[in-house]
Amino acid sequence: MNGKQHQQPSYTAFKVSLTVMCLSIIGSAIAKAEDSLPSWNSGPAKQSIVAFVDRVTQKQSPDYVEPTDRIAVFDNDGTLWPEAPIPFQAAFAFDEVKRRVPKEPTLAADPMVQAVLQGDIGKLIEGKHHDGLLKVMAITHAGMSTDEFATSVSDWLESAEHPRFKKAYSDLTYQPMQELLDYLRANGFKCFIVSGGGADFMRVWSERVYGIPAENVVGSTGQAKYEMRDGKPQLIKTLDHLFVDDKEGKPVGIHQFIGRRPIACFGNSDGDQAMLEYTTIDNPLPSFGLIVHHTDVEREYAYDKKPSSSGKLTTALEAASKRGWTVVDMKSDWVRVFRGSGSE
Amino acid sequence: MNGKQHQQPSYTAFKVSLTVMCLSIIGSAIAKAEDSLPSWNSGPAKQSIVAFVDRVTQKQSPDYVEPTDRIAVFDNDGTLWPEAPIPFQAAFAFDEVKRRVPKEPTLAADPMVQAVLQGDIGKLIEGKHHDGLLKVMAITHAGMSTDEFATSVSDWLESAEHPRFKKAYSDLTYQPMQELLDYLRANGFKCFIVSGGGADFMRVWSERVYGIPAENVVGSTGQAKYEMRDGKPQLIKTLDHLFVDDKEGKPVGIHQFIGRRPIACFGNSDGDQAMLEYTTIDNPLPSFGLIVHHTDVEREYAYDKKPSSSGKLTTALEAASKRGWTVVDMKSDWVRVFRGSGSE
Repeated sequence: MNGKQHQQPSYTAFKVSLTVMCLSIIGSAIAKAEDSLPSWNSGPAKQSIVAFVDRVTQKQSPDYVEPTDRIAVFDNDGTLWPEAPIPFQAAFAFDEVKRRVPKEPTLAADPMVQAVLQGDIGKLIEGKHHDGLLKVMAITHAGMSTDEFATSVSDWLESAEHPRFKKAYSDLTYQPMQELLDYLRANGFKCFIVSGGGADFMRVWSERVYGIPAENVVGSTGQAKYEMRDGKPQLIKTLDHLFVDDKEGKPVGIHQFIGRRPIACFGNSDGDQAMLEYTTIDNPLPSFGLIVHHTDVEREYAYDKKPSSSGKLTTALEAASKRGWTVVDMKSDWVRVFRGSGSE
Repeated sequence: MNGKQHQQPSYTAFKVSLTVMCLSIIGSAIAKAEDSLPSWNSGPAKQSIVAFVDRVTQKQSPDYVEPTDRIAVFDNDGTLWPEAPIPFQAAFAFDEVKRRVPKEPTLAADPMVQAVLQGDIGKLIEGKHHDGLLKVMAITHAGMSTDEFATSVSDWLESAEHPRFKKAYSDLTYQPMQELLDYLRANGFKCFIVSGGGADFMRVWSERVYGIPAENVVGSTGQAKYEMRDGKPQLIKTLDHLFVDDKEGKPVGIHQFIGRRPIACFGNSDGDQAMLEYTTIDNPLPSFGLIVHHTDVEREYAYDKKPSSSGKLTTALEAASKRGWTVVDMKSDWVRVFRGSGSE
């Protein structure tokens, strides 16, 4: 009895706090009924997104998809943030090279390191996967512990600045795509990054910048080596079993890391074509593909056949109409480009 | 005005349904306040679990851990379900061998296939990673599409029966561990399987059996090959870049697939020691390690130094007291062993 009296107040407080929580749920749910994509101009692109989400999330829809199967995959460079003048991770690698060469003269012997020091981007982006870039990334991304690498990435992000926009790189995400991520998550989608960039690089900031937790990031990886150093567990980054999460590697990475076929795929280049096809061709579930076309030289960049440093878009753009993929014209479909930017 | 009248009812219905949903949340939350681990006898093991969860989840606790960092990893064979008389995936592989040998006589040439046909388990479990078992699994797990493989796994699960318990293998999960999974999830943990078993094998049933979605399953993998067959995307299973998610491979797999250090780790054998150490030694966050000790020959199996077919437990058991890992005595700590079983 006495015990009951003691329990009563806390139970009431408990119930009250839960009710408050529930009211906030109701509030946010009502908000969701309003426009979730304010940075998207009305038009076919925005309409196709909303139509697909309604089609797979409304219980009474014949194309209803269970939440557990609502997997959405996003390329990162050129899709969620820019990849010009060079991919941001390449900028990190170049800064690392410049920081380390004075202390490690042997590094300078590598022709690709020389290309970095001479700013010879052309040489670095030759080859199927921009082999030079990968080489430089490999040099700057291996041999240290995963914790040391994560620290060097966050230190760089805090100090580095985009050469054109004079902002921290992580402040240059696309506002319309951020709204799209929120909109999909609010509709029960699980959003993953599937990028040619390094998983260890992106996982340092993906949750802070996109709300995408580390475990939802699929990227290029080398297999780390586990060892005890001074009685402490360490994972040392290596170049063993280097997995390049690009082109045909993207469906492979999706299967290996997510284990489920996506129903929605968002990319911007020929490097995303394979995962767009994997998502939308012969998928037993309803599916959606979207390509961000960089057409806005004023507010961002304009490129496709003639790419910036990466992000070539030719065959995927040709395939779009045949495959029914939505093509976003950045210039006309987006009210604003960057998070926190005005409408200009 | 007229529009308003039309909207009003649906809005009300909407609000009502949400309120109902909220009441059910309140109901389940109140339920959670009661014993969430009814199949665990009171004792040090159960107390240590509850104490750790309270310690990292109560806002006012100095050791509070944000939900996003509440990563819990579970071995599967011997930790969530039995691994005797042989690991269930080995039983699948053996049945596959027997099913295929008549149609593919060349298979019979392999000495490990012969070992299967002769029931020579000893030969199959020789070597650091039970190399024979892996070989047979490789033979039966490659060369077909990932969809074909998934179908063969579910077909097998529907028809196969455990030789001793005469039940479908997926009906033999440990009830106390199922309650532990639910308890951790209810407390904001993200639960992952980290098993030496094949990711493609486990992902077929992990969500149905444990409520663990495919993307939260880390296991041994071969890199699939992406190709278009008759204009349809296909992923063909191969043995390339075979990654064995066992022993030192487990911390490596955790880093590569989850990208975050766990704060809780649950295993049962020396194969789990590396991930127990990675989770609990020098972790900047509070951490918890637990070993399921198979001591119940009546209700399940009793083995450690002398393992069943796998699951040897010697060095990890010796390390437990030094590392502060909880050791579960299956016989005395568990009220019941199997899901749906009585207390006997």
